[in-house]
Amino acid sequence: VEDYEQAAKSLAKALMIREKYARLAYHRFPRTTARIGSWFWLPIPMFEDPYCLDDAPPNLGYLVRMQGGILFVYDNKKMLERQEPHSLPYPDLETYTVDMSHILALITDGPTKTYCHRRLNFLESKFSLHEMLNEMSEFKELKSNPHRDFYNVRKVDTHIHAAACMNQKHLLRFIKHTYQTEPDRAVAEKRGRKITLRQVFDSLHMDPYDLTVDSLDVHAGRQTFHRFDKFNSKYNPVGASELRDLYLKTENYLGGEYFARMVKEVARELEESKYQYSEPRLSIYGRSPEEWPNLARWFIQHKVYSPNMRWIIQVPRIYDIFRSKKLLPSFGKMLENIFLPLFEATINPQDHQELHLFLKYVTGFDSVDDESKHSDHMFSDKSPSPDIWTSEQNPPYSYYLYYMYANIMVLNNLRRERGLSTFLFRPHCGEAGSITHLVSAFLTADNISHGLLLKKSPVLQYLYYLAQIPIAMSPLSNNSLFLEYSKNPLREFLHKGLHVSLSTDDPMQFHYTKEALMEEYAIAAQVWKLSTCDLCEIARNSVLQSGLSHQEKQKFLGQNYYKEGPEGNDIRKTNVAQIRMAFRYETLCNELSFLSDAMKSEEITALTK
Amino acid sequence: VEDYEQAAKSLAKALMIREKYARLAYHRFPRTTARIGSWFWLPIPMFEDPYCLDDAPPNLGYLVRMQGGILFVYDNKKMLERQEPHSLPYPDLETYTVDMSHILALITDGPTKTYCHRRLNFLESKFSLHEMLNEMSEFKELKSNPHRDFYNVRKVDTHIHAAACMNQKHLLRFIKHTYQTEPDRAVAEKRGRKITLRQVFDSLHMDPYDLTVDSLDVHAGRQTFHRFDKFNSKYNPVGASELRDLYLKTENYLGGEYFARMVKEVARELEESKYQYSEPRLSIYGRSPEEWPNLARWFIQHKVYSPNMRWIIQVPRIYDIFRSKKLLPSFGKMLENIFLPLFEATINPQDHQELHLFLKYVTGFDSVDDESKHSDHMFSDKSPSPDIWTSEQNPPYSYYLYYMYANIMVLNNLRRERGLSTFLFRPHCGEAGSITHLVSAFLTADNISHGLLLKKSPVLQYLYYLAQIPIAMSPLSNNSLFLEYSKNPLREFLHKGLHVSLSTDDPMQFHYTKEALMEEYAIAAQVWKLSTCDLCEIARNSVLQSGLSHQEKQKFLGQNYYKEGPEGNDIRKTNVAQIRMAFRYETLCNELSFLSDAMKSEEITALTK
Repeated sequence: VEDYEQAAKSLAKALMIREKYARLAYHRFPRTTARIGSWFWLPIPMFEDPYCLDDAPPNLGYLVRMQGGILFVYDNKKMLERQEPHSLPYPDLETYTVDMSHILALITDGPTKTYCHRRLNFLESKFSLHEMLNEMSEFKELKSNPHRDFYNVRKVDTHIHAAACMNQKHLLRFIKHTYQTEPDRAVAEKRGRKITLRQVFDSLHMDPYDLTVDSLDVHAGRQTFHRFDKFNSKYNPVGASELRDLYLKTENYLGGEYFARMVKEVARELEESKYQYSEPRLSIYGRSPEEWPNLARWFIQHKVYSPNMRWIIQVPRIYDIFRSKKLLPSFGKMLENIFLPLFEATINPQDHQELHLFLKYVTGFDSVDDESKHSDHMFSDKSPSPDIWTSEQNPPYSYYLYYMYANIMVLNNLRRERGLSTFLFRPHCGEAGSITHLVSAFLTADNISHGLLLKKSPVLQYLYYLAQIPIAMSPLSNNSLFLEYSKNPLREFLHKGLHVSLSTDDPMQFHYTKEALMEEYAIAAQVWKLSTCDLCEIARNSVLQSGLSHQEKQKFLGQNYYKEGPEGNDIRKTNVAQIRMAFRYETLCNELSFLSDAMKSEEITALTK
Repeated sequence: VEDYEQAAKSLAKALMIREKYARLAYHRFPRTTARIGSWFWLPIPMFEDPYCLDDAPPNLGYLVRMQGGILFVYDNKKMLERQEPHSLPYPDLETYTVDMSHILALITDGPTKTYCHRRLNFLESKFSLHEMLNEMSEFKELKSNPHRDFYNVRKVDTHIHAAACMNQKHLLRFIKHTYQTEPDRAVAEKRGRKITLRQVFDSLHMDPYDLTVDSLDVHAGRQTFHRFDKFNSKYNPVGASELRDLYLKTENYLGGEYFARMVKEVARELEESKYQYSEPRLSIYGRSPEEWPNLARWFIQHKVYSPNMRWIIQVPRIYDIFRSKKLLPSFGKMLENIFLPLFEATINPQDHQELHLFLKYVTGFDSVDDESKHSDHMFSDKSPSPDIWTSEQNPPYSYYLYYMYANIMVLNNLRRERGLSTFLFRPHCGEAGSITHLVSAFLTADNISHGLLLKKSPVLQYLYYLAQIPIAMSPLSNNSLFLEYSKNPLREFLHKGLHVSLSTDDPMQFHYTKEALMEEYAIAAQVWKLSTCDLCEIARNSVLQSGLSHQEKQKFLGQNYYKEGPEGNDIRKTNVAQIRMAFRYETLCNELSFLSDAMKSEEITALTK
């Protein structure tokens, strides 16, 4: 019993640590958990509406400098000289590493492991019981719910890469179409010589008429299982990087026109479907500060906006490649290239009008790459800071996450001060590699993609449950890359009450039909025999997890969607049974009640100086 | 060794028995197997083109009489009096029961079981080896195959019920549409009073605007598992048989207009997809001889014809229900109602022009119902013949199958004599119940639907392999009714080389997306990690299994599709690697070679007198 009290205390502290990081970055934290901890968590709308802004506000004239990998804002030159930054929270690495080590210790602590394991088992059994007792009542509730069913509840594809957002057949058709309609258009330039589309295909010894999805070869197969490297090369149609550059990139001779056209075709399909939304990832690599204005220009010039899409910026963790090609002097420079343009556009939107506009539709950041790549370096407060990280070695996952979080946090506070939208940090996490990744994300992420490895750590899984951290799962992607479909923990997570949604990741590589997200739902429903209520709960989760605006969420989920429990559910919009909502709410409150005393007494060091 | 020789002999005899039954009914038998047995199997086109006919041929004036459950044809009244039937093969029950008992003995014979079990294991291991060695070469072959990929190879939905051929969302939309556009139309009649669509819904206390897929409740759920009775009631939208009658029947006050319109909408989608075909089942119950002219009129009046559909007639095995309601005096009458109109339309097409026309597009018969229902009666040559089967008890599965086969066989021979198209017998078989069903079908069926229970009998499974009997499998249907998806033997059957295809059974009950057949392929591909070559092999099998015409098959599969082995494969049309075709062919020849001596020496009693 004493052991368990200690476990409860440690878990409570872990939750409070997360709350601190979430508050600082304008990330979200569940009201129920906050209420039981008696924290001052305001029931603010989870997200500001990116459309309510007037035009570019005036220049504040602030100066920005990177120090130790984090951008600091100064009111003016004098303050910069005096090293007195503008009053914003700036993170402190020492506290961060202390917090990290608390959680790291926790996940290997015997009694806490036992405690969490037992609670999770209990959650699973409790749901089975609920299902046996209430399945028919839930369905009855849904049957008497007029006009709303699984087909017309809103679903958000919470994790999808723009460069693979069309399916293989769509890409094939598009390539053929361009060749038929404009074979003589100049589409590239090599050593000053213009190259037409026909010449591109001639040089590949290929007639697009003969092209098939087989020769296109962008679909993941059995060969990609546990081979992320092979998977990455599938982004090259016909194995030719020329075609990837031409069709799937925003920066090329055509100014990314083909890519924009395809993305817009996908967007039109979503708009026609009416009930489907998606959050595609666009890349910023951090090679150069020009990437941002170029991306914004691509977005505006080709009118890529769609009401059914919200954009997320993905940053690949490939500093080592750029460094070894001498494109970057240090990791600090990469961070600067990624974040400085955003600070500048925030301080002086009038001089960065395109970027300012584009950022209205960007709702978050993602961190992407192969998590199974091992790193020799252990991140700690002794690690070299980004400005002196000049080696060719790649920093570890946790290092990337901390510095992305740190800069997003400062940026969000600056933007908040101006009444501008803020960004959610939504990294890929727990797809493979070390489970410590999930510890980093527990502190720094609003929500994550994948989360498979929660399977392997009862403590983390229970914490993710208590903090209701949204997890965008992609079982079909996992099936091709890391974990067989039947072994995917989605069903188990859903049953226990973790906040899971379904997403496609890469329709180009993984899906067969025209409706990738529906394919994802259909397969999950069939293989795991999910009920309509299960499906609608997942769909509701996906809207909550997404970066859609407060107003949109009210429209899609109900006026009070941000409240927890049945009160926050409008069955006429979500088609989730109130019986289910009540079960989830009571269950969460019950779990939290074991921690509530501990939660009130624990003390937490502030992250910021 | 001696044991195995005996096993080989028995298996050879079993194959020869099947060949006899197939030949008599104009069913198909694989050329390879026939060649090794040195039988006179002509390499005829597997199916006559139903379009090559001139208009209704003249009346032959023959007379038809049912005797012992089988229709006999007489040239004229005098011959009838003399009981000298027209020279056609008429089956002999005694021989049939002897043949049945040979196979029945075989499937429980120890040495034969061991032999077949070992051969099947060998086949599976051999394929694994083939896959490991040749997977990349197969894919390379497909990649260099121009213009053809999985998306544009022809696929036939070989098993689908017309009354459930639209998905749930489609049915819902259609119901709402009719209510919006013609609420005041009279759609039914009760005691002489006309009832409008609005009144129908008023009496159900329902506003179609509020209707959802949940309240429609036609989708199979966890409740239907092993409950065929519950599943059958899912055919009633909103649980109301009125709506089933109105929307899903060919005979009602509107002359089946709504049903026809929905089927045509499904047909338009197939035509647009261009590469997808389907073989929907329409019901003939055998309650009255009027069913046939009514069905033909429905087909013609509403112009239900589509180039992408071929029709199959399903006969539900529900004599007991009709008998207990006193709608039928005997089982013989039911058979007469089913078959006599066809004999008459064949003998005198000019007086049955609509039926004659409709039959051009009917390619086969199906026998449907819950196979798991137990019957007390054991079919033998001592069983009461159909004309004296007057009890309320339902005849067993094997009885149904024999008498359907017997009449189809005589009918096919009569039609063949006139140059008219023949019908394939394609019953549901091996979905549940006794494995002896698969013995009946081994003799009487051209091909079957389901075949799940082959899993349980190595001898039958091996015989189905050797005779390459096509099996239309529907794993999603099984998943809702009889067998979890992951336990479905499709993948294993495919690997061993059984002739399997994929089909949807009931999109209304089982599927989620707009493209039910693609959903079926996609889920199989994902869960079982099927390769493109696997998928295209299944698609090719589906065309072969189907009732599409010789000309169509040549167009879809290649000029020589009816030849076996790589010679019969045109990769440019099928996208099946020649390496795969060669493997299958060599493997089959190898298996047959063990039987070849035995096959030449065995003697078989003629079925017909």
